[in-house]
Amino acid sequence: MPRVVVDVMLKPEILDPQGQAVANALPRLGVTDVSSVRIGRRIEIEFTGQPDLDRAREIADKLLANPVIEDFSVRVAEAGDTAEGNP
Amino acid sequence: MPRVVVDVMLKPEILDPQGQAVANALPRLGVTDVSSVRIGRRIEIEFTGQPDLDRAREIADKLLANPVIEDFSVRVAEAGDTAEGNP
Amino acid sequence: MPRVVVDVMLKPEILDPQGQAVANALPRLGVTDVSSVRIGRRIEIEFTGQPDLDRAREIADKLLANPVIEDFSVRVAEAGDTAEGNP
Amino acid sequence: MPRVVVDVMLKPEILDPQGQAVANALPRLGVTDVSSVRIGRRIEIEFTGQPDLDRAREIADKLLANPVIEDFSVRVAEAGDTAEGNP
Repeated sequence: MPRVVVDVMLKPEILDPQGQAVANALPRLGVTDVSSVRIGRRIEIEFTGQPDLDRAREIADKLLANPVIEDFSVRVAEAGDTAEGNP
Repeated sequence: MPRVVVDVMLKPEILDPQGQAVANALPRLGVTDVSSVRIGRRIEIEFTGQPDLDRAREIADKLLANPVIEDFSVRVAEAGDTAEGNP
Repeated sequence: MPRVVVDVMLKPEILDPQGQAVANALPRLGVTDVSSVRIGRRIEIEFTGQPDLDRAREIADKLLANPVIEDFSVRVAEAGDTAEGNP
Repeated sequence: MPRVVVDVMLKPEILDPQGQAVANALPRLGVTDVSSVRIGRRIEIEFTGQPDLDRAREIADKLLANPVIEDFSVRVAEAGDTAEGNP
């Protein structure tokens, strides 16, 4: 199924307390070489026909992201671009 | 800065009402060729040195995803794999 | 403005890794008397007229919560039931 | 178990596109008397002893909310202040 992926992240200058919480929890797992964790959103949009990047960009701009505080990018998903790949 | 991206999505068989809300809102934007919208999380982890995929997978498994209801994948970010790419 | 609040939390038996991350980060703040942190959603619905709890419950059931993995409750907001109350 | 509830909402002047998506989807459910939907977070913190509001406020300020874009409030949960109340 043709699919578009929209990635939405808080702009770099906006503090992300939930990411900070994960970062702060890492030393207890013995992880000391992580400098930053940022948590955003990944949205997968399936089209019935050809994936339409312009449409997806419009959807992202209106319903998925707040451009004042967030950046987003839109791309057609390639094979393997899925969250199901974990063993 | 070396960076790892973790994508977390609800398993396909788990209903995603927030994605459904976005899908249901699309006809009002004139979009009628979208069959599904799923909303997950994208987490960016910056390492001070070489990005460590095994570490990132452990972090995802313990602090970022619930493997019972979510799938996740872990990869080293390539150049351009960023949410800041929108024009 | 009449307002309904919908609270959505993962069912108690479902692991909440993001809450766990916050809990794990607390000792670094000197907090050692917290046994659990759970992160859910709070949705505020404003009605143009009388707030309609049955409607709100239907909206929650279809667009805000996944009843398989989440619990939700619906109530009319009382005065002061707002997130703006922090000093 | 003594519990503190932290409610976090985007400040009123910050656009909430996910809430907007839910609002836009409502006419398809036959709901036409909703003027606004805003989606925030509800965090439940369980203390081993007496719930400590000052502590909870500090946790919220550092790990749960971004005060630049979000408001939060902190309160001790009363009986029945739970998301498990739905029938």
